[in-house]
Order: sequence, then structure tokens, then C-alpha cells
Amino acid sequence: MSKNDSTPLAHLADIPSGFRQLIGFRLTEWKQGEATLSLTVGPRHLNRNGVVHGGVLTTLIDAAGGYAGCYCPHPNRVRRTATVSLATQFIAPGRNGEIVARARVRGGGRRIFISSVEVLDAGGKLLALGEGVYRYSSGSEKPDGTPVERKGETRGTDLG
Amino acid sequence: MSKNDSTPLAHLADIPSGFRQLIGFRLTEWKQGEATLSLTVGPRHLNRNGVVHGGVLTTLIDAAGGYAGCYCPHPNRVRRTATVSLATQFIAPGRNGEIVARARVRGGGRRIFISSVEVLDAGGKLLALGEGVYRYSSGSEKPDGTPVERKGETRGTDLG
Amino acid sequence: MSKNDSTPLAHLADIPSGFRQLIGFRLTEWKQGEATLSLTVGPRHLNRNGVVHGGVLTTLIDAAGGYAGCYCPHPNRVRRTATVSLATQFIAPGRNGEIVARARVRGGGRRIFISSVEVLDAGGKLLALGEGVYRYSSGSEKPDGTPVERKGETRGTDLG
Amino acid sequence: MSKNDSTPLAHLADIPSGFRQLIGFRLTEWKQGEATLSLTVGPRHLNRNGVVHGGVLTTLIDAAGGYAGCYCPHPNRVRRTATVSLATQFIAPGRNGEIVARARVRGGGRRIFISSVEVLDAGGKLLALGEGVYRYSSGSEKPDGTPVERKGETRGTDLG
Repeated sequence: MSKNDSTPLAHLADIPSGFRQLIGFRLTEWKQGEATLSLTVGPRHLNRNGVVHGGVLTTLIDAAGGYAGCYCPHPNRVRRTATVSLATQFIAPGRNGEIVARARVRGGGRRIFISSVEVLDAGGKLLALGEGVYRYSSGSEKPDGTPVERKGETRGTDLG
Repeated sequence: MSKNDSTPLAHLADIPSGFRQLIGFRLTEWKQGEATLSLTVGPRHLNRNGVVHGGVLTTLIDAAGGYAGCYCPHPNRVRRTATVSLATQFIAPGRNGEIVARARVRGGGRRIFISSVEVLDAGGKLLALGEGVYRYSSGSEKPDGTPVERKGETRGTDLG
Repeated sequence: MSKNDSTPLAHLADIPSGFRQLIGFRLTEWKQGEATLSLTVGPRHLNRNGVVHGGVLTTLIDAAGGYAGCYCPHPNRVRRTATVSLATQFIAPGRNGEIVARARVRGGGRRIFISSVEVLDAGGKLLALGEGVYRYSSGSEKPDGTPVERKGETRGTDLG
Repeated sequence: MSKNDSTPLAHLADIPSGFRQLIGFRLTEWKQGEATLSLTVGPRHLNRNGVVHGGVLTTLIDAAGGYAGCYCPHPNRVRRTATVSLATQFIAPGRNGEIVARARVRGGGRRIFISSVEVLDAGGKLLALGEGVYRYSSGSEKPDGTPVERKGETRGTDLG
């Protein structure tokens, strides 16, 4: 992911939450109704079988699905969300390499939205499926976001 | 959690998986059909709103539910499992302090089991609900586990 | 369930929806944050194995969880809701006899609530677990309901 | 759906279960890893708001996902399954007309499979999303099915 501050995604990448930093995923695609997170799997993501821990997959699904509903085309504005429920089906074990979580909004309205997410490995193999229900935080319901002025941040979600 | 090697749980605590080490939860209660995980929430578990990240809660639920079905009373034996699906409802935001995930097996048979899990904060407030479907790994179906001879390990699951 | 029009539940029982009539469940307990539905299992509820169809159980869970969040103590008022998501775990096969779905609200706020539901047979055996996310319809957010004047109806939900 | 007994689907259609008869859905497409159910919505499928009851949608999802994993190309053989868990997201209200539930298997092995299902109205609008975990009944694990000789039945599932 680009470190260039002139790209919209750079701002999010620069100010990750504690947990996002811990996991180390990156927001690599983001547009209206869609988001993709990428993760370079390392030893810290594995369980004792040497496969990606289920908690890593649910974290990616949770975050990707939320980002998909929070895109705001206006700089200096932000939409915020919180997850209400999350359903995950684990399809195949993930191993070392890059994995991506691709999310898209499937429905919803001003206050709630629903995303579905697929997690794939570098070879395109399906690792997990997820579906999340999210609610917009107060003031974040409008597609054009809520103007914010956080120091060093121009756009984001609560999902980081 | 005791570091005393003479307690059954100590062995698991001593050899956590990469991801379990990263999150830092401890298996604090474990018996037939039940398990409790504990986590001391720190900055690395939080999202940018300062509340516990959803991925932390799903990780606890995933792991606690699996442990609940893998207890084996026999030393030097192990039961292994993999999560098939996980459903989580997020009830209230979690903040600093201790949180616990209490799981119990609700049904199942030789090959599959279903656990339900509640995540509570130190004051007993419900933070999240979860339900998981797990399958036993080959050789782990029997309640008396499968004899193992892993160096430095006497009992455990794949959930770490 | 009583047919006595002087009981609060009678009104709901008298005006079931098409699908509720088809399935034939009754609302047998209803108070703040809780609801119980009862069903007398008959041949029409069974699959070809002679056990209660999964769709019957999900219907009971869906409806019971919604009722739990829609109780209104004031006569002539109504709270309405719609299901956003539903997760069900099937624990054991159900057979002929009475089954009940017991729901209680586990969390939520003015716009959304979350219920968990257990379906039990006459012997108290757990048949299924469910958790639902529901949103209140406009005007139904307040615990004291919304005044209504539907002909022949004094209270209810959209769940029937 | 054809009533011609020479088509594979005809047999299933002729011997529906009690609940399948009650709901009235038809199996209109069925091949390896995929299944489509169709339903002509009538008053009996509606809730008191005049929209398709959530229980109708979960029933279609449950059954379609199960059929998708039970197709057997050999006549006179049958594969049987039971649902372990089901997750549903309700996207939009359904009204009168035809609705279809399109399922496909997303993963699994000899004993368990996972399907995802979309329910669409006649105009192609997404009404609901579902994901199910199913287990094969004993003897049904093999893709070529288990030979059976039920009177008047040549192929089917337990899902009806």
C-alpha cells in the first residue's frame, strides 16, 4: 500500500488502531460499497497447527465488511460504524503468503447495512465466508459522511 | 493462571500458538464440556474508538467454544478440533480491564459439536454472544482423547 | 392459549398472519424483554425423516426473538420490528408433541435489539439455539409503544 | 416444474414432505453442487405487514443449501443430509410473485459441507442471504450417493 499522503488510503494506513497494528492488515482497495483488506501471513497469525487462526479471519471479515459501508468520497469527512453481528464459515485452512478479504455491501439503509465478505489466499482459494450487520454511528448515516477534523487524519472508520 | 507445571492447564499456557501469544488470552477454567478464557485488555486490543476490537471478541469466542469440546481428563492425551462456523452478536463495547469468555458445549456427537459462549467484562456486563460449530480432527472424536507424545506438551487443542 | 379477549395475549392470537396461521404457533408468554411461543407438532411440520423441519424451528426462533423485544405494557399501543439477521444452531431432532421457543432480549438500544432463543421439546431437551438482530420500525422505538387504532387489534408486532 | 416421471426432479416433486407441501416450494434446478428452489408467494406466506415472513425465507435457504450438497447423478441412489447451523441476513421485503433461492456448495468434505444461498424476487432483487453448514447422514458421504430402494422414490434428501 502506498505511503504517499496524497492518496486517500494513506491516511488510514498511517493511523491504525492498536489491534489493527497488531494484526497488520492493510486497506488496499476502497470505494463506494466495497473494500479489500490484505494481510501478509506471518508466524504470529498461526495456530499450533501452522494454519491461520480463525480469529485472524474473523478480524479481517469484520473490518472489511465495515469499511465497505463507510466509504466517503469527500476528503475531511468520515463515516463511522460498529458491528452488530457477524457470521463466518471457515472453508479451508490458510497458510503463509498473502491473503485478501473482499467485502461488498449487500443491503441496508440509513442506519444499518449488511456486507458479505470472502477471504481468499494468493492462489484464489476460498478460505472463509462472512456476513456482517453494521450500524452507522450517530452522524454517519449520510453517504457523504460527517465532517471531522481529527489531527493527522482525514477519513476513516471505527473499524481499525 | 498458575505457572505450576503440575496443574493440567499449565501446559497449554506455556506453549501458546503465535496468535494466542499475540492476543494474550489465558485458559483459566477447563472441564468436561466447559472452558473459560481470560484476557487483560490493553491498548493493543482496542480500535480507534478506544473499545475492544470486534476481532478480539470473535477470537475469544472461537477459542473458548473449541476448548469446551476438547477437554480430555487423561494426561498425555489430546483432542483436536477445527471451527466450521461461528456466529457472534456484539452487545456492548468492552473497555480496559479483565474480560472473560465462558463457553459450554450445547450439543453434538462424535464428529461435530456446538458451543455457545458469553463474553463478560469484570463487572459481569455482557459484551458479546457467540455460537460455534466445530468438528473433531481425525482421531480426536473419543472423549478420552488420543495419546500424544509432543515434546513439552501433554494436552491441548488446535485452537491456540 | 386463552381465547378470553380480556387477556392481553388474546388479541394477538386472534389475528395471526397468514404464515403464522399456516405454522400454527401460539404466543403463550409475553412480558418485558421475554416471549415464549408454543407449537403442537403435527405431520405438516415434519420433513421426510419424520422430524421437525428446520424451517419450522427457524420460524419459531425468528418470531419469538422479535416478540421478546416488542412487548408494550400499554393497551392500544404497538411496537413493530423487522428481523435483520438470524443465526440458528440445530442441536437435536424434534418429534411429535409440544415444543416451545423461549426468547429473551440480550442487548440493544432504541433502534436495534438482539435476542437469544432456545427451542425445547416437551421433555426439556434442547432442539435448537438461535440469535437474532432486529430493528424497530419507525415510531416503535419507545418502550411505551406507539398508539394504534387498528380495527380489532390492540397490540402486536409485525412478526406474526 | 415438469411432472414427467422420466426427469430426475420429478420424483422429488412428487413426494414432498409435510412441511415442504405446506410451504409449497419446488426444486427447479439441481446439479452437482447447485440447487434452485422456486416459490409462488401467496397470502399464506405473508406476515401481517403483507411481506414474506422471515420463516419462509429461512426455510427456502435451509432447503436449497442442503439440496446443493446432495445431488447424486446416479438414479436409484440418494444422499441425505441434516442442517447443523444456518445464518441468514434479511436484505429487502419480499412481496407477491415468484421468488427463487439459489444455492451453491462453497466447501466441505466427506462429512460436512457449506452452502451459500441467495433469495431473489422475480425482478432479481436480493431479498436475503444465507449460509448453512450441513452434515451428511451416515452412508451419504460418497458423491455417488448411497443406493436406496424406497417405495415410490428414487432420489432425494431429508430436506424436503
